[in-house]
Amino acid sequence: MTTGEFDLIARIRARAGTRGDVVLGIGDDAALLAVPADRQLVVTTDTLNHGVHFPEDASPADIGWKSLAVNLSDLAAMGAQPAWCTLSLSLPQSDPAWIDGFLDGFLALAGRHGIALVGGDTTRGPLSISVTAMGLVEAGRALRRDGARVGDDVWVTGTPGDAAAALALLDTQPTHALRARLDRPMPRIEAGHALAGIAHAAVDVSDGLLADLGHICTRSGVGAQVELAQLPASEALQGAVDAEARVAFQATGGDDYELCFTAPGTARERIAALADALDLRFTRIGRIVAGEGVQAIAAHGATWQPPRHGYDHFSTP
Amino acid sequence: MTTGEFDLIARIRARAGTRGDVVLGIGDDAALLAVPADRQLVVTTDTLNHGVHFPEDASPADIGWKSLAVNLSDLAAMGAQPAWCTLSLSLPQSDPAWIDGFLDGFLALAGRHGIALVGGDTTRGPLSISVTAMGLVEAGRALRRDGARVGDDVWVTGTPGDAAAALALLDTQPTHALRARLDRPMPRIEAGHALAGIAHAAVDVSDGLLADLGHICTRSGVGAQVELAQLPASEALQGAVDAEARVAFQATGGDDYELCFTAPGTARERIAALADALDLRFTRIGRIVAGEGVQAIAAHGATWQPPRHGYDHFSTP
Repeated sequence: MTTGEFDLIARIRARAGTRGDVVLGIGDDAALLAVPADRQLVVTTDTLNHGVHFPEDASPADIGWKSLAVNLSDLAAMGAQPAWCTLSLSLPQSDPAWIDGFLDGFLALAGRHGIALVGGDTTRGPLSISVTAMGLVEAGRALRRDGARVGDDVWVTGTPGDAAAALALLDTQPTHALRARLDRPMPRIEAGHALAGIAHAAVDVSDGLLADLGHICTRSGVGAQVELAQLPASEALQGAVDAEARVAFQATGGDDYELCFTAPGTARERIAALADALDLRFTRIGRIVAGEGVQAIAAHGATWQPPRHGYDHFSTP
Repeated sequence: MTTGEFDLIARIRARAGTRGDVVLGIGDDAALLAVPADRQLVVTTDTLNHGVHFPEDASPADIGWKSLAVNLSDLAAMGAQPAWCTLSLSLPQSDPAWIDGFLDGFLALAGRHGIALVGGDTTRGPLSISVTAMGLVEAGRALRRDGARVGDDVWVTGTPGDAAAALALLDTQPTHALRARLDRPMPRIEAGHALAGIAHAAVDVSDGLLADLGHICTRSGVGAQVELAQLPASEALQGAVDAEARVAFQATGGDDYELCFTAPGTARERIAALADALDLRFTRIGRIVAGEGVQAIAAHGATWQPPRHGYDHFSTP
């Protein structure tokens, strides 16, 4: 069964939801949005392609969730409150059941954060999902990559490495807990928003913890030391792989969408309180130092060399 | 020659340009933008896919131009001033020469309208370009599709039909003038902005004149009559096809990115002055009537039936 582009758009529009600041949503040439005078606009775009960004067997709902989640994670890393998004869908053929499943996942996450889907388009082509997410942040309070200072603590939320382990174990059926971390990442919106005013710099962990911390270092003109023994590990990860592989996943695995941030030592109590309030793990994993680059220190004190740094869509592993 | 994603992004970033209201552009998790207090935000997204939205032999620069133009055309139809854009590029392989050519076209149009490229991503996949364009409009002055009133004149800018004729004649080498209209559409930004406060409703002609005017009618709860004899034709179109084909291209051909709008009869002098000021053709082609749907009237007074209405990415012609 196929249906035309206009029907598809109607299908999406009927479920898109709205907010008071959406002057005009789907159905005109563009969306019309009201930005409060004391807020700055935060904008990010990410595309997910078939064969690259999700497993072959991922359900439409998981693909929908993840395509929004990776964008919300960028807003979280800026300390922004999500507000609106647009969706560009390229599909090999029009398939209402697929669209409905996709929207189930996409809108479940959108609803959780009160985001309105305000525009987009549908075109024919290989499966590809491009989302632009827009958020708002108090003027001057955005979390940036360039604010890290020598002496800062380095922190990470949650348990990095799970998503990469799930991907590596796909053929051998990872546990449900690991697989959920790959398919349904939880953007750390509340944490990011609460950290605005506490953290000096932040980034979301999409390419891998050391690589993303490296982006903070480059932009801030500093170096970092990370103690691998401090990296938090989920029970699921500990049960799935040996210690050597675990460290590699934790330090270099992408796709977790946790936050890595730096904060002064004076903020430790506030961060502990935040962890309680949000019921989310915050782990101090290292410090910002003078110099450049990220040094990963193994348990015995030697510098650890990762098997591969980060994730590059155009490199052959 | 290939290069990695980070190099590609650096290549794009080096050429992206900026504006005073870009607090933070490419290089962080998201862009940070300052929206003036008296402006509303206008947002649109469009994707161009290989094999669907541009001819096989289109140059990278033409693809770059067009991928931004189709989005700016949506902003024009809202009466907005373009401000910022993001770019998601999916490429089969990293090809610096292709990217440079693409940016030549993309940034030539961006520069013409003072737009800053503030973010985006590059991923591996079949060639696909997704652009989100953001603009600003004085609060309450946006042009919408739902404002047409019975008695309004119906107008169109430029000469619709050229791009569709060029596409139809691709195999027989259309003239340069026709081909340029397909490859390098000119979004009617200045016209759209000037029409805010004059026009009652507007739409950009992407699906075909009658189909897009139909969107105005549906949203406004009115009908329209269009006199086909009044449709403006370029010399290039007149020289390329016979009268019957010409009318079909003018009335139903997509991809011209002209503006179709409605305005009260009292606005005719101001619109004539605008045509002079912008050196752009504005043609009165019909009127808004009570009822629903668009009636196309042939020279002899009979209702004309188009060979096919609009353009649907998921229908077989």
